[in-house]
Amino acid sequence: MIPLQNLEESEMSIRRAFSIVGVGKYLPKRIVKSSEIERKLGLPKGFIHKNIGVESRHVAKDETNTFMGEQALRKALQDAKLQISDIDFLIGASATFDYIIPNRSCMIKSAFEEAEELGFPCIDMNAVCTSFISAMDYAAMLLETNEYKNIAIVSSEISSKGLNPSDAKTYGLFGDGAAAIILSKTDEETGLIKQESKTYVKAVKYTIIEGGGNMNHTRDVPYDPALYSFKMEGRKLLSHVKPHLTEYLSLFFQKSTGSMQEVDLIIPHQASKLGFKMLTMLNQGKEDNIVNELENHGNCIAASIPLALVSSIQNGRLKEGDSCFLVGTAAGVTISGMLFRYGRK
Amino acid sequence: MIPLQNLEESEMSIRRAFSIVGVGKYLPKRIVKSSEIERKLGLPKGFIHKNIGVESRHVAKDETNTFMGEQALRKALQDAKLQISDIDFLIGASATFDYIIPNRSCMIKSAFEEAEELGFPCIDMNAVCTSFISAMDYAAMLLETNEYKNIAIVSSEISSKGLNPSDAKTYGLFGDGAAAIILSKTDEETGLIKQESKTYVKAVKYTIIEGGGNMNHTRDVPYDPALYSFKMEGRKLLSHVKPHLTEYLSLFFQKSTGSMQEVDLIIPHQASKLGFKMLTMLNQGKEDNIVNELENHGNCIAASIPLALVSSIQNGRLKEGDSCFLVGTAAGVTISGMLFRYGRK
Repeated sequence: MIPLQNLEESEMSIRRAFSIVGVGKYLPKRIVKSSEIERKLGLPKGFIHKNIGVESRHVAKDETNTFMGEQALRKALQDAKLQISDIDFLIGASATFDYIIPNRSCMIKSAFEEAEELGFPCIDMNAVCTSFISAMDYAAMLLETNEYKNIAIVSSEISSKGLNPSDAKTYGLFGDGAAAIILSKTDEETGLIKQESKTYVKAVKYTIIEGGGNMNHTRDVPYDPALYSFKMEGRKLLSHVKPHLTEYLSLFFQKSTGSMQEVDLIIPHQASKLGFKMLTMLNQGKEDNIVNELENHGNCIAASIPLALVSSIQNGRLKEGDSCFLVGTAAGVTISGMLFRYGRK
Repeated sequence: MIPLQNLEESEMSIRRAFSIVGVGKYLPKRIVKSSEIERKLGLPKGFIHKNIGVESRHVAKDETNTFMGEQALRKALQDAKLQISDIDFLIGASATFDYIIPNRSCMIKSAFEEAEELGFPCIDMNAVCTSFISAMDYAAMLLETNEYKNIAIVSSEISSKGLNPSDAKTYGLFGDGAAAIILSKTDEETGLIKQESKTYVKAVKYTIIEGGGNMNHTRDVPYDPALYSFKMEGRKLLSHVKPHLTEYLSLFFQKSTGSMQEVDLIIPHQASKLGFKMLTMLNQGKEDNIVNELENHGNCIAASIPLALVSSIQNGRLKEGDSCFLVGTAAGVTISGMLFRYGRK
């Protein structure tokens, strides 16, 4: 970690200042163990953990995207010692939703009865699994305008309804959950150092839910678990992503931002066991600065990164003044990363 | 219009500079006349035009959200004399989509074979009917970072699949279409003067598609035209919106930004006949600076505002140096407005 007093001299300077004044998460009460899925699918005991890296995941039962998002945001507000009336902007950053219309963030705001007369705007951002990184970058820009003080970002995902129970590769991988953070203006030397996203569309259909949009509208095509569930061509995807991610990381961590191994904490999208393997390799084999919650959460789409960020702040692994690198790949394929210095004040 | 040379002295100064270097639109080939719908529904001839304000609308047949968005963007590129390789960022700003995953903007990029090796990022923004205004504000901020030169915004909407053919109020109102603009860096005194969004969630469920998300997932609830179609409690919505919109406009047009009647061109969301009536009233009865395309397009959700913007630029109603006010209300309910000075250079 670069001592804060040296930041002026360092090239890892803050481009857009912010602090993270509050964090919160919500995980569905029901936990589904991989052994349960293995029994259902007639798979050998330990198969999912060994091959997919997931031991258990939370699965929403009565919880909705809106409810989980609200709960996470309530906890973030409590953590920040703020009220909903202190929020100036709400970004909903997720791929899944309760309703096509209205949008996610309006639904979350509406769960706060005490927000009925408040006018703060609600906008959704969607870059699938890396939505949260895009939303943080957007929020940092909004703070720069000096029109907003506290910006809430909520990622709430229910993947479980869009999974095919007979496809072990995806059914064993995904989980549900929600996380929220509050980004605020600060005079401290913390905030965004660098952010970059790249989209390479050759693999656009390697990860897809084919049914439920206008292409295969429910009006025209009845429900079937294969068509209306997330499909992934994992190995094809990884071999497409690998050269792009390698180039991306080598350009991202040029001289001015130091090396990836020097970052205090790397919080990747919890994409898959193979994804972690690739990232570790690109981190020169170094594992101890990479946060891995895949085992107990699975891949929670856009909620994965903020869930791991919230945990890391709560358990003290990410400390004030630390540098933190959020990074992930998303359906599309989008590669997105943000390097920031964490501060709470 | 305030002469450009006086801008320094004026308080209508440019906060974030941009130019609109290219615009394009795509409307589905099939046109459905209101008389056709009236015959189907057994309504008196002229009923829809009289009560809803729509004479005809374009309805997608074989066209998809992706295809229409691609076509609109190709025309905008042609207009700007740019190639897709000149684009640095693509924002998909719509409520409807071909697929839940991947996101809209990645799908549109993937329709450009020549973009396969290009890395520019693709992010979606969704504030339902006012998505385009939010995307323009976001794009203006992105240009301010000096990391991007040309940003494409595409709004492509197919509302027709999500309409209940037995509900004349909505079936007669909505249409399909797509529009694209390219926002670029400029040294001229053009660009954003003021932008503001407000969300009031008391009416969050007055406009809704109940089915197709996680709340009424297709897995659990089979298709039925009422549940999977857009529902609107029009009059309740309007009476909720009216006081908020009145206050919003009066605060927006304070001394520093002149009066709404002084704006050269107002491009509202083409929400409904009653919506236009309310806006005209709030514009002190002045109609001649308000663009109204409702009659031949219907309400095209997030594509309505950019479609009208593209028309106004193409037919010369919006001239370089003119002030332009984009404004709309969206499901949620979000009220969003942007005042900008139009320039092409």
